Amino acid sequence: MIKVGIIGATGYAGYETLRLLLNHPKVSVTCLVSKSFVNKKISEIYHNLYSVCDLVCEALDYSVILKKADCFIVALPHGASQQTVAELYKAGKKVIDLSADYRYEDSTKYEATYKLNHEYLDVLEKAVYGLPELNRDEIANCNLVANPGCYPTCSILGLAPLLKNNLIDTSSIIIDAISGVTGAGRKQDLMYQFNECTENFLAYKVANHRHTTEIEEQLSKIANENIVISFTPHLSPMKRGMMATIYSALKTDISITDIYNVYKQYYKDEYFIRIKESDTLVVTKAVVASNFVDIAIYKDQRTNRVIVISAIDNIGKGASSQAIQNFNIMYGFDEKLGISSAGTYL
Amino acid sequence: MIKVGIIGATGYAGYETLRLLLNHPKVSVTCLVSKSFVNKKISEIYHNLYSVCDLVCEALDYSVILKKADCFIVALPHGASQQTVAELYKAGKKVIDLSADYRYEDSTKYEATYKLNHEYLDVLEKAVYGLPELNRDEIANCNLVANPGCYPTCSILGLAPLLKNNLIDTSSIIIDAISGVTGAGRKQDLMYQFNECTENFLAYKVANHRHTTEIEEQLSKIANENIVISFTPHLSPMKRGMMATIYSALKTDISITDIYNVYKQYYKDEYFIRIKESDTLVVTKAVVASNFVDIAIYKDQRTNRVIVISAIDNIGKGASSQAIQNFNIMYGFDEKLGISSAGTYL
Amino acid sequence: MIKVGIIGATGYAGYETLRLLLNHPKVSVTCLVSKSFVNKKISEIYHNLYSVCDLVCEALDYSVILKKADCFIVALPHGASQQTVAELYKAGKKVIDLSADYRYEDSTKYEATYKLNHEYLDVLEKAVYGLPELNRDEIANCNLVANPGCYPTCSILGLAPLLKNNLIDTSSIIIDAISGVTGAGRKQDLMYQFNECTENFLAYKVANHRHTTEIEEQLSKIANENIVISFTPHLSPMKRGMMATIYSALKTDISITDIYNVYKQYYKDEYFIRIKESDTLVVTKAVVASNFVDIAIYKDQRTNRVIVISAIDNIGKGASSQAIQNFNIMYGFDEKLGISSAGTYL
Amino acid sequence: MIKVGIIGATGYAGYETLRLLLNHPKVSVTCLVSKSFVNKKISEIYHNLYSVCDLVCEALDYSVILKKADCFIVALPHGASQQTVAELYKAGKKVIDLSADYRYEDSTKYEATYKLNHEYLDVLEKAVYGLPELNRDEIANCNLVANPGCYPTCSILGLAPLLKNNLIDTSSIIIDAISGVTGAGRKQDLMYQFNECTENFLAYKVANHRHTTEIEEQLSKIANENIVISFTPHLSPMKRGMMATIYSALKTDISITDIYNVYKQYYKDEYFIRIKESDTLVVTKAVVASNFVDIAIYKDQRTNRVIVISAIDNIGKGASSQAIQNFNIMYGFDEKLGISSAGTYL
Repeated sequence: MIKVGIIGATGYAGYETLRLLLNHPKVSVTCLVSKSFVNKKISEIYHNLYSVCDLVCEALDYSVILKKADCFIVALPHGASQQTVAELYKAGKKVIDLSADYRYEDSTKYEATYKLNHEYLDVLEKAVYGLPELNRDEIANCNLVANPGCYPTCSILGLAPLLKNNLIDTSSIIIDAISGVTGAGRKQDLMYQFNECTENFLAYKVANHRHTTEIEEQLSKIANENIVISFTPHLSPMKRGMMATIYSALKTDISITDIYNVYKQYYKDEYFIRIKESDTLVVTKAVVASNFVDIAIYKDQRTNRVIVISAIDNIGKGASSQAIQNFNIMYGFDEKLGISSAGTYL
Repeated sequence: MIKVGIIGATGYAGYETLRLLLNHPKVSVTCLVSKSFVNKKISEIYHNLYSVCDLVCEALDYSVILKKADCFIVALPHGASQQTVAELYKAGKKVIDLSADYRYEDSTKYEATYKLNHEYLDVLEKAVYGLPELNRDEIANCNLVANPGCYPTCSILGLAPLLKNNLIDTSSIIIDAISGVTGAGRKQDLMYQFNECTENFLAYKVANHRHTTEIEEQLSKIANENIVISFTPHLSPMKRGMMATIYSALKTDISITDIYNVYKQYYKDEYFIRIKESDTLVVTKAVVASNFVDIAIYKDQRTNRVIVISAIDNIGKGASSQAIQNFNIMYGFDEKLGISSAGTYL
Repeated sequence: MIKVGIIGATGYAGYETLRLLLNHPKVSVTCLVSKSFVNKKISEIYHNLYSVCDLVCEALDYSVILKKADCFIVALPHGASQQTVAELYKAGKKVIDLSADYRYEDSTKYEATYKLNHEYLDVLEKAVYGLPELNRDEIANCNLVANPGCYPTCSILGLAPLLKNNLIDTSSIIIDAISGVTGAGRKQDLMYQFNECTENFLAYKVANHRHTTEIEEQLSKIANENIVISFTPHLSPMKRGMMATIYSALKTDISITDIYNVYKQYYKDEYFIRIKESDTLVVTKAVVASNFVDIAIYKDQRTNRVIVISAIDNIGKGASSQAIQNFNIMYGFDEKLGISSAGTYL
Repeated sequence: MIKVGIIGATGYAGYETLRLLLNHPKVSVTCLVSKSFVNKKISEIYHNLYSVCDLVCEALDYSVILKKADCFIVALPHGASQQTVAELYKAGKKVIDLSADYRYEDSTKYEATYKLNHEYLDVLEKAVYGLPELNRDEIANCNLVANPGCYPTCSILGLAPLLKNNLIDTSSIIIDAISGVTGAGRKQDLMYQFNECTENFLAYKVANHRHTTEIEEQLSKIANENIVISFTPHLSPMKRGMMATIYSALKTDISITDIYNVYKQYYKDEYFIRIKESDTLVVTKAVVASNFVDIAIYKDQRTNRVIVISAIDNIGKGASSQAIQNFNIMYGFDEKLGISSAGTYL
């Protein structure tokens, strides 16, 4: 059994990671760190856990927690993660970081995007971007995984086959995406109050969302050229679920069947990627509470654009279950351990 | 008092038109026609109307209804509207049709899009496309208004200032839109059952939704050139509300302030169009249960695209209250009569 | 035109009162007082009001506001209302108070329930409990109305005919009620965050909710005996709407038809009370965004209990539109002015 | 591995049973029977199962299915279940029936309640009422379990300790309950359409819901006297979750602490029953997607009533996971196998 600690356990991503790990056959969660709820049982915050997991949250005291676990999953806000991850990593622990702090190869992009200096460039260069479908081998051989953002996961996996096969005009990419409200985290904010959120839909951070540069860095690596995109996130009145509708101009007159086969081939060994037939709808509820990615591809004959619909659970494949997928790879376990199930649908 | 009849009164658009007309100071609703609920009180179907409006639904018998009203608002499915509108129009009535049957100048586009022949081309050529902000004068002088579709209303009003001022590459237009579930109408369909719809988001009719050609015909008229677009509608888990996120490439390096001023100027006399400052969010709940259109404009500096966010109530400005706006114009009333209020917000 | 000021205009009850008054033909809203949003336009808080009402919120400065309005509607939290209402009342204004501060005839009950001293007993004794269906004449002749709580409105109107006609064992009354989330007000609270509220149902303040004593005082007045009840409120995942399911033991073997007729007779002149046939469902959405009260009565033959279902909009008849009903009565206007419409249903 | 077949696999209860069994370490689901979807993959109906379970639905052909499985879980509508259960049982299979057909010891009550004759009285008398917390031993030794209704599960478990300890006046029991919309099943019905259901709350089948007699038969057995109750179900706008608020008159002046201890003692060995401290809220989302029952007990000091709040997942402990709990007991497995997890909360 691997002893795992969760730093930032009471936020939604930390909690969801805990919930999943409680069913993982090779994991014992030994330590929950929280800033706001020290000495409170996690089951006092998440009442569903009552009698199932009554672990007590503790403060971030390295002298204590380093003895408690071999691997740490860090679910802190960006900025706050920098030091914690560095401390744990330098102490020889395996670390999976859910923040943006270790996701960028180019630290100047991180700094420009997040308006923060990166204080641990030596650690940053050891980090691997934790998208298993692209970087499985590096993940297997590293001690620090930077777990991707939710929008980047959804967008990059939707675009990778097109870029790898050089099918699209890379200057034409537009990503229009929506997220459920858990994407905003567990916080008191009038904007996310039930009465304000329900029966409401909105666009936010139009043309300046921070995930834009993260997506671009990864797409540029895949395409081996510098890519600039337009990205618009929206908030949809639901807890979980994310969808990206991705537009790009086809370079040639390839048929939809051929594009479909490109996707099928590219992801043929990927359990978690499901390429849907074009006559079936992609719906977020098919992936909610799972690690699956559902992708459908359409050709807009009249404009010669390809339109990709990519759906994930923003706190599943977009955060917590992807962290566990990375964990499994880092430890040489079956990648699906603890996260192979279909979502709940209802 | 103008005597108004509603054909198709028990669907959502027909009902909402009735609800609004009950508060219209110049209207007396005298006749409700329904196919499925003949001899039933409308208040047995919509319980909120109990004791407020207990009119009895009647069958479509022209010899009866022609005597009852001077103006008819027709809220039938496309196809079903053709004959009814023609009969009423030829009998000398003023008619506002909420279906697609009289929206196209080019009947071949209608026929290709809806897979139906148009049997009343003589009537079709009398119809005016009922977008008051574009066609106010024609509406004032006609007896037949084809009330625009919801997606077209939202999209065209968002794009008109850019096209009129020749600011964008017309081949670059992408419209990514969402609608609340009332857009699907009042029908029994497993897909729209509460358990299936709630906590779910989906794209549908990708690259082949019927409103595409309607939008294109109108945009082409505005731009005076043939325009082809990409249009993707989505379903968001909420009753009412519609948002279009519209992407297009700027032709020149115009500043966001200048674009904003173009919009302010273009819509300066329009009560129902509200151009929002770019630091305020456009949210659908600000327009729900109203006839307002909220528009914000953003410039994606890095790609030189302009992104327009346009929000309406799909059954308000997207259907029923726009029908009443057209009604007011046809009768020479103050255009805002009965529909000037802010939405409910809560 | 009556000049009306709203104190506490940015909370949900204050806002909803404003929204309704904007359509009231005899009212000009001249003054909005807010604690948290001084110098902000109300339309910056409620974006639906943009361009419809751009009044600026001001601080509570009596020297200023007393000159601005003849009537004040006070939507402050209990406790905070005591002094403000007293100041306005003593200055000769008509006042409608939405808090609990002036609802109790017996100030000791108020003090025990709210753990507050009442500092204005002289003003308290001038206040009339603003349930028009019971106290219309007193309301017409007073300058201070204490607008009832939402649960009391829903419960008392459901029980009054039974008590007036001496049909039930008064020791047997159990009120099981639910409210939409707007009942919690406009505040940042983790419990009312979308992710926490949606898909969730809960009971709260079981056997000790503060509205219990308010209900009891009014029921006791109606029955002319001291009544003690059990009352359990619940939170249902919806914005608006309230339902009380009320159980009591019948004293005799009266038929359901006779009970029904008792209700029909008792409320025969009341526009806003709708007694539903027992084969029609009472649904909250039939009353949402209206001032209506829908009531159905059932007899549980096997236990000889009568079960009353009473539904209102918690911020309509349960707060804002009832305040306007009281306003109309105080000024001798038609009681329905500005609030006669059916709710939105959709 | 036990081979299990599910009859009625495409309804919500059948589906949820399948979803849970796919993670059960001792079960292989070998057969899915459906009436409406013969030859369709279950994953074409529930898209979340795509690539996880692509079993094909088959018709109800006993000659085929009897060879395929050792145990059948039958999720058919009442009435339809009678014959199917009898056939399977008589063929020597273990059967768990989710309908009402085999729940009543007194067949006349079944017949009066469901307006159906019972054609298999010989089989009926072999059936055990599958509430493990009350009938664990009988379940372990039978081949036919009648899985309880959702409202009965929630209500009976809430009341059992009071009845067993003779603490309440049995003529005073009132059960006021709510259910999520999945309780209505997977069907096309205008009433359950998203636009009709959301933002709506209603009471239905007041004083005549069929679960009333099922609850009464079980309560009467526990108390060893004939019990008649009042029961009112409501529909709350959420997918899953059920709450019963149960009122009864205390016979003596027992303290809340003593009542609490009665519950703690009564359920001390029950993993799935969680007695909550009275200062914590019982919320349905703490039990959704789990087999847990959360119960809180309150004393209404002023009326000497005890109020019990009992919460379950209507399709979890109220249907599918309870069926698996019964399955585990019938086969001598650990009762928690496959259903021990906490719910999803989010």
